[in-house]
Amino acid sequence: MTRSAGAQLPEAAPSAGPAVGAGLVDPRIEDAMRRALAASAQVHGTTSPNPPVGCVILDADGNVAGVGATAPPGGPHAEIVALGQAGERAVGGAAVVSLEPCAHHGRTPPCTAALIGAGIATVYAAVPDPNPLAAGGAAALREAGVAVTIGPLTDEAACGPLRAWLHAMRTGRPHVTWKFAATLDGRSAAVDGTSRWITGREARSQVHAVRATADAIIVGTGTALADNPALTARRPDGTAHAHQPLRVVVGHRDLPRGARLDAPDVLHLRSHDPDVVLAELSRRGVIEALLEGGPRLAGAFLAAGRVDRVLAFVAPALLGAGPAALAEAGVGTIGDIRRLQVDAVHRVGADVLIDARPLQKGTR
Amino acid sequence: MTRSAGAQLPEAAPSAGPAVGAGLVDPRIEDAMRRALAASAQVHGTTSPNPPVGCVILDADGNVAGVGATAPPGGPHAEIVALGQAGERAVGGAAVVSLEPCAHHGRTPPCTAALIGAGIATVYAAVPDPNPLAAGGAAALREAGVAVTIGPLTDEAACGPLRAWLHAMRTGRPHVTWKFAATLDGRSAAVDGTSRWITGREARSQVHAVRATADAIIVGTGTALADNPALTARRPDGTAHAHQPLRVVVGHRDLPRGARLDAPDVLHLRSHDPDVVLAELSRRGVIEALLEGGPRLAGAFLAAGRVDRVLAFVAPALLGAGPAALAEAGVGTIGDIRRLQVDAVHRVGADVLIDARPLQKGTR
Ligand SMILES: NC(=O)c1ccc[n+]([C@@H]2O[C@H](COP(=O)([O-])OP(=O)(O)OC[C@H]3O[C@@H](n4cnc5c(N)ncnc54)[C@H](OP(=O)(O)O)[C@@H]3O)[C@@H](O)[C@H]2O)c1
Ligand SMILES: NC(=O)c1ccc[n+]([C@@H]2O[C@H](COP(=O)([O-])OP(=O)(O)OC[C@H]3O[C@@H](n4cnc5c(N)ncnc54)[C@H](OP(=O)(O)O)[C@@H]3O)[C@@H](O)[C@H]2O)c1
Repeated sequence: MTRSAGAQLPEAAPSAGPAVGAGLVDPRIEDAMRRALAASAQVHGTTSPNPPVGCVILDADGNVAGVGATAPPGGPHAEIVALGQAGERAVGGAAVVSLEPCAHHGRTPPCTAALIGAGIATVYAAVPDPNPLAAGGAAALREAGVAVTIGPLTDEAACGPLRAWLHAMRTGRPHVTWKFAATLDGRSAAVDGTSRWITGREARSQVHAVRATADAIIVGTGTALADNPALTARRPDGTAHAHQPLRVVVGHRDLPRGARLDAPDVLHLRSHDPDVVLAELSRRGVIEALLEGGPRLAGAFLAAGRVDRVLAFVAPALLGAGPAALAEAGVGTIGDIRRLQVDAVHRVGADVLIDARPLQKGTR
Repeated sequence: MTRSAGAQLPEAAPSAGPAVGAGLVDPRIEDAMRRALAASAQVHGTTSPNPPVGCVILDADGNVAGVGATAPPGGPHAEIVALGQAGERAVGGAAVVSLEPCAHHGRTPPCTAALIGAGIATVYAAVPDPNPLAAGGAAALREAGVAVTIGPLTDEAACGPLRAWLHAMRTGRPHVTWKFAATLDGRSAAVDGTSRWITGREARSQVHAVRATADAIIVGTGTALADNPALTARRPDGTAHAHQPLRVVVGHRDLPRGARLDAPDVLHLRSHDPDVVLAELSRRGVIEALLEGGPRLAGAFLAAGRVDRVLAFVAPALLGAGPAALAEAGVGTIGDIRRLQVDAVHRVGADVLIDARPLQKGTR
């Protein structure tokens, strides 16, 4: 049980599997990788369509000479930031980076060239780059005589800040996290419709922190009309997070003039097809989408197999009546139940957060 | 996070508060008390109307000389069992017992007399006896020159096997645990009524272990008619636990001939008043009742403030439709929501067990 008092949502950490050659990895390399992951977590949400990457440069004696993370699009990659800090100390040193360095010319020159040019002797990359355009980094480095290891902390990196980006690379679709809040008996409001507040302050503040790492927040017109939400990412003191996700409303109905989501920067998609929604978001560079409901839109995404992570904030409270957190998920009989795998359970203030992912149908 | 692989349900352990003089307690005393608690857990469910108590006798050098637990009604108390094992080694030693030793003549002679007669020099009792008939044990011991300490592990003992008995002493009513199983969205069956199985094998086996510690299992006629349950406590291999709780059906309707609960040893209470039910159970010596639903009977007990503990087995699965786990709990608006306090969250196989207790109305 992790008690997460702060607003930062711990990333799902599966059983920490050993990295390649884990038994042989210098503990300083693992420490450096943890630091690289922490640096990447800091920029999570600000880098799309690029992945949030972290990099630590160790000098030839194994001391930290530079720490960097991906800058917003158009800015330098993590390796370049860290190399800039390290300067001459990089010569004969190691680069410890959460993702395999890129070998291609994009908006910025390839990181492999910078690492080679700086005299780096060894590269540790937690996760190989699945992107066919950028891949080949390890090969290019090895060709130049740089030793390359995949790992350590491959699983932590893949399930951490890189999770959504890796998913998007693999599937061509944004990663969708469905977040909902409900009582222990699955209600999201009382029978008269009142619902403020079911979960506590800490849970609500954690939702805002999750929003700040998303590229887009999606709600159905039902939620937009019923709740008139702002869908902004705010700190507990009410101030806005630096990064604000694209706000997306899905459904045919118009919103009334003056509604909070009746704004020029809100994307209103008049469709009922999750794949149409995701394709449009993908086109706009969205890697990570947060589906905030309501029950029917969430049901449609679940039924279509387009939910990749479930964050259920369960309030220790009972209502016994009132609207349910989920509707019309396409399940008619128990054999069609949507099974999830629990990745982590956290206590958030008085509430319980269940972090899970849908399993393939029929598996348990 | 406790992962409880076995069938034994961990008792709710609140933040382990310091016992009286905790800083000064010999670690051997605390070890002995843990052993006494473990011994009491072993007889939990077999001692009503007596409390399940555990006792460890340490000789004058602090070595374990005897371990005992309450025998079934009419049999010896824990202290007597442990003293019998210790024999002469009790002289000048300590009795470490989960409950203040009794000073009254019941079906068995007072334990205080036995402890004094055996030459015990010191008694550690985790919890004072709230029973006015049996209380006065500490005073009687002190009068005879025995040093008496309340603690250590007062909270562990009070929230462990003694919890229901202490509640019954305080309120005059059996302690009621409402157990339910539901999906993450609060459904207990699919929309067509099918429900086998929502939770996994480990959760179901844990429910049977909880049944084995209860004096009575209660269901409504709705559940009896719909599910035709046996309500017996069985091991994973199908064999019956030694202790079987009294099976109780509540409601006006008759059960059909041949129904599993249409049996002479089943108590059918034709009432809708939870207090009528509890008074009748109390009269029959029930200390600990397990309310297994269904949704409407649970709603009635909750609305009446007659649920003392909630064990929610939450399956990581979604249905989006189907009968709810709870109905008619008397909540019309969010201000009347029934708040709980989470005592513990456990992972049980693939499922999540939330162990909670209702808070007073209006508190959060
Ligand atoms: N528990 C929670 O965490 C939570 C979260 C959000 C909202 N809510 C509550 O949910 C309630 C609203 O419920 P709702 O179900 O109406 O909200 P909703 O799911 O947000 O909106 C439903 C609407 O979404 C549109 N839609 C788009 N694609 C769809 C599809 N494939 N299938 C069905 N509809 C689709 C339809 O709009 P058109 O008819 O316009 O085409 C539909 O009427 C509010 O009271 C809100 O407070 C709870
Ligand atoms: N999720 C779970 O863990 C779980 C557990 C158990 C059952 N279930 C499901 O629940 C379904 C049955 O639902 P249900 O609500 O009919 O079951 P129920 O709560 O077991 O039975 C309802 C009946 O209880 C009687 N009753 C006694 N006192 C009452 C009161 N104060 N208020 C209302 N009724 C009172 C009434 O019987 P009379 O009309 O005869 O007077 C009423 O019809 C079954 O399908 C079963 O599978 C689920």
